Amino acid sequence: MPSAPRPAASVTGDPLLLTPGPLTTSKSVKEVMVHDWGSRDATFIAINKAVLDGLPRIIHGEGEFVTVPMQGSGTFAVEAMLTSFVPKGGKALVLVNGAYGLRAKKILDVAGRANVVHETAEDTPPDLAEIEQILTKDSAITHVFAVHCETTSGIRNPVEAVAALVARLGRRLLIDAMSAFGALPLDAREVAFDAVAASSNKCIQGVPGLGFVLARKAALEETKGNATTLTLDLYDQHQAISKTGQYRFTPPIHVIVAFHQALQEFFAEGGVAGRGERYAENARILIDGMGRLGFRTLLPAARQAPIIVTFHMPKDEAFVFQRFYDALKDRGYVIYPGKLTVADSFRIGCIGDLHANDMSAFVATVAEVLDEMGVGLKSAA
Amino acid sequence: MPSAPRPAASVTGDPLLLTPGPLTTSKSVKEVMVHDWGSRDATFIAINKAVLDGLPRIIHGEGEFVTVPMQGSGTFAVEAMLTSFVPKGGKALVLVNGAYGLRAKKILDVAGRANVVHETAEDTPPDLAEIEQILTKDSAITHVFAVHCETTSGIRNPVEAVAALVARLGRRLLIDAMSAFGALPLDAREVAFDAVAASSNKCIQGVPGLGFVLARKAALEETKGNATTLTLDLYDQHQAISKTGQYRFTPPIHVIVAFHQALQEFFAEGGVAGRGERYAENARILIDGMGRLGFRTLLPAARQAPIIVTFHMPKDEAFVFQRFYDALKDRGYVIYPGKLTVADSFRIGCIGDLHANDMSAFVATVAEVLDEMGVGLKSAA
Ligand SMILES: Cc1ncc(COP(=O)(O)O)c(C=O)c1O
Ligand SMILES: Cc1ncc(COP(=O)(O)O)c(C=O)c1O
Repeated sequence: MPSAPRPAASVTGDPLLLTPGPLTTSKSVKEVMVHDWGSRDATFIAINKAVLDGLPRIIHGEGEFVTVPMQGSGTFAVEAMLTSFVPKGGKALVLVNGAYGLRAKKILDVAGRANVVHETAEDTPPDLAEIEQILTKDSAITHVFAVHCETTSGIRNPVEAVAALVARLGRRLLIDAMSAFGALPLDAREVAFDAVAASSNKCIQGVPGLGFVLARKAALEETKGNATTLTLDLYDQHQAISKTGQYRFTPPIHVIVAFHQALQEFFAEGGVAGRGERYAENARILIDGMGRLGFRTLLPAARQAPIIVTFHMPKDEAFVFQRFYDALKDRGYVIYPGKLTVADSFRIGCIGDLHANDMSAFVATVAEVLDEMGVGLKSAA
Repeated sequence: MPSAPRPAASVTGDPLLLTPGPLTTSKSVKEVMVHDWGSRDATFIAINKAVLDGLPRIIHGEGEFVTVPMQGSGTFAVEAMLTSFVPKGGKALVLVNGAYGLRAKKILDVAGRANVVHETAEDTPPDLAEIEQILTKDSAITHVFAVHCETTSGIRNPVEAVAALVARLGRRLLIDAMSAFGALPLDAREVAFDAVAASSNKCIQGVPGLGFVLARKAALEETKGNATTLTLDLYDQHQAISKTGQYRFTPPIHVIVAFHQALQEFFAEGGVAGRGERYAENARILIDGMGRLGFRTLLPAARQAPIIVTFHMPKDEAFVFQRFYDALKDRGYVIYPGKLTVADSFRIGCIGDLHANDMSAFVATVAEVLDEMGVGLKSAA
């Protein structure tokens, strides 16, 4: 039996969040929030501008793309993107292999936007040949919607190949990159898309409360009057901010200032390359370590994004998920239940202010908890 | 010449915000944000529940009303309220005497909801006789929308009288109480309304990033399927939270935890009575002091809410608003430009973590700045 690791905790004394977000953030990101700013005052306006100017660099979209921030959560940004970009007479093909693809379809249904779905199993990427067939047969389809990393399973969807196909067939691509943005490369110079949605509290490691859409300027220009609500109108939001530097409606100032700090720390870590590599190492340590304990991943390595890993629920009767969850929480680790229909499972996130030593300590703690539960090592799965 | 007051600053070193929000908040409210929480973990769920359970107490709506929180800003809550409560076949009468009434009308227009406006000047409350006539003549009108304190001018609208009339004529009332909520009494046992919208960063003195709607349960039950978006659907949001204790989409956790702290401080101050009295004193000191310097308020005392005060722009040519603003900012006070069409004006807020000594020091600083600008005391207006 290994000697008991002491409870993990971030420097602020909180459990480590091994979830798909909100995440463990650095102390410096949280500490900048202990201030007040006027939303229409120059001090905040400058901070906000730095955020909006910085984000397009992450996709190499400087000059071509603008950031349109959206108060709320990531879903608010996705709904703003879909309802602003898909016009009343448009039609969307939604690629579904998890909850977030399904959610996009629901958003389109509520908005009364025609749509059709190409669905694959949660562990299976979309079928390019089938997409080609659907688009070729249905000329009414104007837009394709894809999820970069479908957080339901952690699968990395082939957005580059999808983008090439969609562009070849003269359609527009909208991407939900929520959990991938800043960790998986997405290069707007090589990948054709009109807009990508993400949020403050995933791989940029800010706190939750702000979504954003990076929009190709020329495409955004065409969206006037499309939106179905005032607040989620990306065209309107962009017009106001570009004219006045100010939000139309009160911005979540503290969240934005924290996001500004997080963005600086992101660039200091080497941007997508640096952060992506840390997460990849986190995922390697996690998958190898859990593998040694007998846990099997849902996805083969080639489809696994280094964001969140889905593990099959062990078959051992001594393994009770709620006990496992609670025992890990007691020891300072918050994990995530499963959301899958294809398999009974749970999920462990690799993103946030987590490092190699955290992941190793986590694996050691899992071993300890299994032991305590009477689940035999190596017989877990 | 008075001896120069030293620059004002909150305990966190920030300028004091004499604006309609975001406001100066207490240090303790901001400090609770220096932590991380999992959004689906029991610790956060309990904090969130305390917030949702606490808010209806402020309108004496325990049992009858539920809190439906809405990520985003106050406008997101207002749009959620209007699009969820006014059904497709409904029609709204919008009472307008400022920017927020107009915004509600715009929201209804974008949503395709029939509406008619009763508009009065920005310094004039709605005309009850005219409302009665409109409602009597147009039986298609199902809902009336009113703004409690129209922050454009700071006017206190007579929502109690409006509510009595609307109830007598068998219609439903929806209230935007954004800047009034927690400071002006609104007693659901005596005032009939279906829903009231407000936000985290006004008189409860939290940080911005969360709106909420207090909804009469029985009325909320009737709203299923009304909403025009997924995210702003109050029915759906309420269903999910009451079933699972969890938000449908990532909540702005830090904002909510700060709001929880702010709410505790609000109740400790004596709730609406205590906070309202402090703000009333702030307003008295401000209006008296500015009056002695020659500034005239837009509104007569009887119509003035103790939230934000509109002052006429002085006619003295030596008075340049941007210089005045900047000089006050340099000395630690952020004020607010005007938003009025009826008069050239600026605004000073009385809400937030501001106390009698802050308001007195502010007035002394205004005197100093006028002196420096060469604007004669007493000749300012
Ligand atoms: C791929 C994806 N899309 C959308 C969302 C929704 O984001 P939010 O929960 O912030 O609304 C998430 C959240 O995890 C996500 O992973
Ligand atoms: C009366 C009123 N309604 C609505 C709003 C809009 O709130 P937000 O700016 O948070 O969207 C405000 C903001 O000051 C307000 O005072």
